Amino acid sequence: MSASLAQTDRVAADELLVTEPGRVALPPGEPHDDALPVWNDWVCHSPDHVVAAWLSRFEQLLSTGHIEAAVELFLPDSFWRDILAFTWNLHTAEGQDAIRDMLRTCLGSVKPKAWQANGPSREVEDIIEATFDFETEVGRGTGVLRLKDGRCWTLLTTLVELKGHEEAIRHRRPIGLAADAYRPGRESWGERRKRHAEEIGVTRQPYCLVVGAGLWGLALGARLKQLNVSTLLIDRLERPSDVWRNRYDTLVTNSPSAADHLPYMPYPDNWPAFPSKDQIANWLDCYASIMELDIWCKTDCRRAVFDEARDEWIVDVVRDGQAVTLRPKQLVFATGFFGPPHVPEFPGAANFAGEQIHSASFQTAHAYRGRQCVVIGADVSGHDIAAALWEAGADVTVVQRSPVIIVPRESLLGLFQELFSDTAVDRGMTPEKADLLLASLPFRVLSRQHAKMFAEIKQRDSEFYRKLEESGFQLTDGEDHAGLLPQLYRRGAGYYVDVGASKLIINGSIKLRSRVGIECITEHGVLLSDGTELPADVIIYATGYDRSKIPAWKILPDEVRHAVGKLWGYGSGFRGDPGPWEGELRNVWKPTQQRGLWFGAGGFLHSRFYSRVLALQIKAREVGIPTQVYRIPETHCRD
Amino acid sequence: MSASLAQTDRVAADELLVTEPGRVALPPGEPHDDALPVWNDWVCHSPDHVVAAWLSRFEQLLSTGHIEAAVELFLPDSFWRDILAFTWNLHTAEGQDAIRDMLRTCLGSVKPKAWQANGPSREVEDIIEATFDFETEVGRGTGVLRLKDGRCWTLLTTLVELKGHEEAIRHRRPIGLAADAYRPGRESWGERRKRHAEEIGVTRQPYCLVVGAGLWGLALGARLKQLNVSTLLIDRLERPSDVWRNRYDTLVTNSPSAADHLPYMPYPDNWPAFPSKDQIANWLDCYASIMELDIWCKTDCRRAVFDEARDEWIVDVVRDGQAVTLRPKQLVFATGFFGPPHVPEFPGAANFAGEQIHSASFQTAHAYRGRQCVVIGADVSGHDIAAALWEAGADVTVVQRSPVIIVPRESLLGLFQELFSDTAVDRGMTPEKADLLLASLPFRVLSRQHAKMFAEIKQRDSEFYRKLEESGFQLTDGEDHAGLLPQLYRRGAGYYVDVGASKLIINGSIKLRSRVGIECITEHGVLLSDGTELPADVIIYATGYDRSKIPAWKILPDEVRHAVGKLWGYGSGFRGDPGPWEGELRNVWKPTQQRGLWFGAGGFLHSRFYSRVLALQIKAREVGIPTQVYRIPETHCRD
Repeated sequence: MSASLAQTDRVAADELLVTEPGRVALPPGEPHDDALPVWNDWVCHSPDHVVAAWLSRFEQLLSTGHIEAAVELFLPDSFWRDILAFTWNLHTAEGQDAIRDMLRTCLGSVKPKAWQANGPSREVEDIIEATFDFETEVGRGTGVLRLKDGRCWTLLTTLVELKGHEEAIRHRRPIGLAADAYRPGRESWGERRKRHAEEIGVTRQPYCLVVGAGLWGLALGARLKQLNVSTLLIDRLERPSDVWRNRYDTLVTNSPSAADHLPYMPYPDNWPAFPSKDQIANWLDCYASIMELDIWCKTDCRRAVFDEARDEWIVDVVRDGQAVTLRPKQLVFATGFFGPPHVPEFPGAANFAGEQIHSASFQTAHAYRGRQCVVIGADVSGHDIAAALWEAGADVTVVQRSPVIIVPRESLLGLFQELFSDTAVDRGMTPEKADLLLASLPFRVLSRQHAKMFAEIKQRDSEFYRKLEESGFQLTDGEDHAGLLPQLYRRGAGYYVDVGASKLIINGSIKLRSRVGIECITEHGVLLSDGTELPADVIIYATGYDRSKIPAWKILPDEVRHAVGKLWGYGSGFRGDPGPWEGELRNVWKPTQQRGLWFGAGGFLHSRFYSRVLALQIKAREVGIPTQVYRIPETHCRD
Repeated sequence: MSASLAQTDRVAADELLVTEPGRVALPPGEPHDDALPVWNDWVCHSPDHVVAAWLSRFEQLLSTGHIEAAVELFLPDSFWRDILAFTWNLHTAEGQDAIRDMLRTCLGSVKPKAWQANGPSREVEDIIEATFDFETEVGRGTGVLRLKDGRCWTLLTTLVELKGHEEAIRHRRPIGLAADAYRPGRESWGERRKRHAEEIGVTRQPYCLVVGAGLWGLALGARLKQLNVSTLLIDRLERPSDVWRNRYDTLVTNSPSAADHLPYMPYPDNWPAFPSKDQIANWLDCYASIMELDIWCKTDCRRAVFDEARDEWIVDVVRDGQAVTLRPKQLVFATGFFGPPHVPEFPGAANFAGEQIHSASFQTAHAYRGRQCVVIGADVSGHDIAAALWEAGADVTVVQRSPVIIVPRESLLGLFQELFSDTAVDRGMTPEKADLLLASLPFRVLSRQHAKMFAEIKQRDSEFYRKLEESGFQLTDGEDHAGLLPQLYRRGAGYYVDVGASKLIINGSIKLRSRVGIECITEHGVLLSDGTELPADVIIYATGYDRSKIPAWKILPDEVRHAVGKLWGYGSGFRGDPGPWEGELRNVWKPTQQRGLWFGAGGFLHSRFYSRVLALQIKAREVGIPTQVYRIPETHCRD
């Protein structure tokens, strides 16, 4: 018999099983043990039916514990990325063996069910892509399925909410106080808000302490607030937004704002595509206010030790000059994956007669009019600062010491167009779905896909790249030829999104010295490895940050640092991202080797999606939902 | 021949004209002068086709100047509400004669075209409702058409944007500075913002001055900013939001937040359905910051005189103690339609031994624990304050002097459900479309419709109303039996949205004296007209505001006040809203008898839609687009 699909959205699995040619033998005891469907028969049917059939079959096999047959629904070269739903971890199982192992360990407790496509499928070349919903014993999830020849090529499963602990949003939004709730002694909203703010950390310990109230801390704080987890954020600055406000005045964001909004609160319709750092700072202030977060500003975190006996942290902080000890159960560092500014130790630097400044401290170019400036480094800040200096009337030379990935901003925008843009919204795309699709690409696939896209960009902008190379600029595609994004995940450096500085380099407005090292700093300049000396009144070190000295390592005991190992990077083995291969970012948004210790990091693009991932893990622990973690990675890259 | 409709969205008008029975003779020279379609033939076709056919025919007749035939497309008992598109006014033409007059006056210059339904039609009972787009010589518009038996029952046409002066939003959002824009001396975003703020009103006069930076001023300011109109807002308070922050602490909004967001910036997903006044205040602060409005706070507007010679205003203000004269071309009062707190002059009040306070100054009930409080007035603030006093442990009596409209909040939510709710959004409703549909109901229809809805509410909540009446409370439906909303448009008083205080009245927690007047205030109480005396330590006057003394009348010359006449109210002839019938709100959001003088008023619900209406009128004048106003109403209700 041949497969015959009913014209309904949900296809009975049985109908698909009665096939003849090319059948696959099942182990005894599998349902319908005489046959598996001939996958190639499916593709003549509508993509929606193929997806419904796959999900239905998958559900049937999982719910009856037929792991081996379920594994056969995946291609040999397939990927299953799970975010919390099966593994209480961020884990990508690569290939059938890894999928089998994951299912054997996790399936029993997860009890997945109700797999159901939640929108029309999409066919791109030989791939069918669909998003779907499902449930587990403890929560609800969504995912992305990609089928090739009827079998799964990539699967994403991600937990979205915990049953009984849903976020208080939209249909579940609070009614507000005073709704039929009059009772003697009731507090007004303002009184309650004030009391809560006064109590937390003083008479009432937060369940979760978040160190760092930059965008990541704020996003996580907002998520935890909606999940009703008592949370305190601390930040060393006067306003959390000052981390943005204090940067150089021409700084603008690199990724389009359409991709960048924080959880719950979209940007307004008139928000610029690439806001300036001051606009971002204003926004963050508003976000903290509207999300009603409890934040201690001007508060330094000095020391955090885990108290095994009480299963909580002892955290010493200094709040506006006053020592306070906090005792949270969960401790999150949302201080990024960068450490302090890195200044290479060049001989002679101490004797330089002019001004030396790191890009982190550079605020405005106005003072440098008419002066000879040497910018060391050709990443984002090197380009931005060089251009600002040129605008201010300085004489600028950039010294490029290693190749850099350059992407014209217009071309970068093109990469975002399909998922994050006004056009995408007009076509019905939502940020939630876009986030899901973005998360659905395993690192190996992401790298391949971006290599293809970057090749196209190089083709289209070939004239630009040719001129830039003729100017002497050293370009690279990245070691995996995949351009900017994978490199961001490897080391977060070595690229520039061109907003015009490349043109200034091409036309000579900004002078360039490349393919040279720096021999030493002289009294009045920089001596390069080719023997030439660049005269300089000012040296700007756009030389990045030290990733081995992130703020957390100054606060936590050495043994914790050793146990946890490296942050960020997925183990590609390329520069700044030593192996072994992990296929997920190391130690961010997920359990670490230290109980109760978490790291939130990444840009705006990650904050919306992964803040929920981290918040759900904390909420589950707060309410005692079992969270057996599948495969906390071994510690790698201890320093 | 019978009408035969092609299966396309857009139906050729010709196809509809070749009809036989029931044909209507046209005046000579009309196109197809032998026949008009038989309207009844149409209804057998799909609503979308009927709408497309009507619009097509309407366009054909208007574009060829066949006004008489166009008027025949309307029912005798029909309404055409136009907002700017045809009239550069807010005007409702009621009936065919009025429509004919409007078309005769306006059609020549408007040149409407490209009428096109922009979504599926909806059939409700015998009405077909559809939204559509169209164009005029100078702009683009949208509207709502309601057909009954194939002819127009209500038509709304509203101008949405001026060609060449579109709002800088979404696809037109700014890219942000620094995009390929490097040039010597360029300012950063922060520098430019700072310079603009320092210059406006000092070295550079604003084109538009907005007095009052409450929600209406902010909404209008945001609109004008997106239209690139140089605008300064002034407000007497320290922060514009203080007008909310200074109110009593238990104040919450009455209309659901789903209906209430200001232009461009939706509320976050976790925003409460009924936020407290402090949450609103925080939001307004953020709104002002994110919309980058230029606001002078602590600035009193003292005097405004129109300088005919220079065609501009001379406005004297005191900014933080310093006198400044401003010279805007356009002057908007966004100070609401209420004047100062109204306290009735009761004999003996001067000799009262206790505390007397108006609801406007009441901030918190805590001080009144154990004290005897008499609240005079049973509107929103009377109820809210009485309940807060009871919660604080005071002994409270409400004196009700006139009947009040009461709507349980749940039932009010029901009224909003279809247009403004999470459910509506899930069904594809947008705030833009909901605003349009709301604006599409002429006052006569609105009143009828609400009378029907209010009768249903009274039916459903009959038990509640029965108990409330048994407690002695004097209820009313409003003089038109239409309940809350039309009364809001008539006088903005005389109602309460019950969030629980009615229950406290029913169960006697709040004592009530109704059907009584107040004879006088005694030394220790209130003597009622029935001869009983209420002992009182505190009298709270929840007696509303004086509408005859709005802030503008203290600032403008008397002759301007006389020329302009009354604000708000549509001329129903009912209490607080003297006739003659106008069918539009008097003097708000539209031209007045004084050149360059405008009034913005209303709640959140109006601010999003009508701020654009007002902003477009100002923008058109700024750029010199001809704005021949059809029928500025005669001055009515001079005081």
